[in-house]
Amino acid sequence: MKKSNKKNLSFGEAGRGLSIIKIGGNVIENKEELAKFLTLFANLDGLKILVHGGGKLATQLAAKLGIESKMIDGRRITDAETLEVITMVYGGLTNKNIVAQLQAKNCNAIGLSGADGNAIQAHKRLVKEIDYGFAGDVDGVNNSMISKLLSANLTPVFCAITHDGNGQLLNTNADTIAAEVAIHMSSFYETTLYYCFEKKGVLQNINDEDSVITQIDNRSYTKLLSEGIIADGMIPKIDNCFNAIERGVDKICIGHHSMLDSKNELYTTITI
Amino acid sequence: MKKSNKKNLSFGEAGRGLSIIKIGGNVIENKEELAKFLTLFANLDGLKILVHGGGKLATQLAAKLGIESKMIDGRRITDAETLEVITMVYGGLTNKNIVAQLQAKNCNAIGLSGADGNAIQAHKRLVKEIDYGFAGDVDGVNNSMISKLLSANLTPVFCAITHDGNGQLLNTNADTIAAEVAIHMSSFYETTLYYCFEKKGVLQNINDEDSVITQIDNRSYTKLLSEGIIADGMIPKIDNCFNAIERGVDKICIGHHSMLDSKNELYTTITI
Repeated sequence: MKKSNKKNLSFGEAGRGLSIIKIGGNVIENKEELAKFLTLFANLDGLKILVHGGGKLATQLAAKLGIESKMIDGRRITDAETLEVITMVYGGLTNKNIVAQLQAKNCNAIGLSGADGNAIQAHKRLVKEIDYGFAGDVDGVNNSMISKLLSANLTPVFCAITHDGNGQLLNTNADTIAAEVAIHMSSFYETTLYYCFEKKGVLQNINDEDSVITQIDNRSYTKLLSEGIIADGMIPKIDNCFNAIERGVDKICIGHHSMLDSKNELYTTITI
Repeated sequence: MKKSNKKNLSFGEAGRGLSIIKIGGNVIENKEELAKFLTLFANLDGLKILVHGGGKLATQLAAKLGIESKMIDGRRITDAETLEVITMVYGGLTNKNIVAQLQAKNCNAIGLSGADGNAIQAHKRLVKEIDYGFAGDVDGVNNSMISKLLSANLTPVFCAITHDGNGQLLNTNADTIAAEVAIHMSSFYETTLYYCFEKKGVLQNINDEDSVITQIDNRSYTKLLSEGIIADGMIPKIDNCFNAIERGVDKICIGHHSMLDSKNELYTTITI
């Protein structure tokens, strides 16, 4: 299903391509890899948005301050002290250093949390079996404000923090932020979402780093699931990708951040 | 000297009044005072920009991390570790919490360092007698970018961090940032700069908190200096104010942050 005819053309930059790129802790924690990625990002043509997680830096700072980091199923339990650490590391140290480095590469970056310009509204996750503390589930994205920044030739760089509109910051999954931003921006732009991780893409054979499945669509996904090739933790990730595509994102690419280099064609593309 | 005829009218919001308000550590460190100030700020009519320092929170975090805070004549010596602390506290914890609280008060705040949108360019202070480390002296302010944010109904909130354009963040005096932003924005707007501190204004009698000198101009300043009423640390502050006015700022107000309440008329106004 081609969605380009659904784009609202009320913004100056509308109709142009917009790339939303999410990087994880493995890139942020490695200065050389981060510099390489930021060069690729800065050189990327068209409008773009960066979303970064935080990774181990927050855990390391928490440890130095004697704050225990609690994780359940890979998700951080965010008590008040941990939220302060996350706000310092993600919103301050990581975000501002990325912005300064992008500026040095002639990319006019502007660092944002979800509170800035009311960019991403969320609510504190309801307590069911687990109390995640100050963890946010996204309610909305201020796509018109973000469009104004893009129209002013600014490149938003989001850290994984949202707010509830009542003065409370909330720790929020960076994959989710990237997807929600891409979904909401897809009203105005042809939108491609890039998920960067340590592998080259979704693998046909988990033991062969080069066995990248280059294309997954609804039909082939069903087959890959039934064959057990896509399994375990990869299932919710791919489900989330299809959810984003069904809600308006035009294309999703999964792979190593070197996929941003136009010479590299080995990564996984997900479309309907 | 009236400067309103010098304003460049190329921006949508030009000609409207713009207030730049600087608050110091004494407000930031006190949650109740900060909430009161933010209510006054949010309710202030017209376009506005907030500049905040950091104060003791950075010193406290540095102490917890075993990093010694070195000050010379009230200025912080910023080594690499201290810069990280400042980036976390000023750029992250303080800035994002202020933004989230302003959003809750229906003020569409956007938090910025000088790196964001290349807002404030600086260079690392040259080493003369003292090596201040990663301390920045301001070279320029991107007033057209800031004007675009104001035109998008955003309220910039600056932390006291700049950048050198080569990827280096720099710790920068918040009073200086406020003055430089006001000076550069005065090309486009009728600009009033508010310096908030713990006293009600510049005092005639240092032992009488209510002996506020309500108006200082060039002529009365000379007299106050010769009489020794303005002395010591207040001299460079007032000199900086006159410098800002000579470079285009229309009015400067010095006093307690309650001066933002229109009912309060007791503070010091500095004009040419």
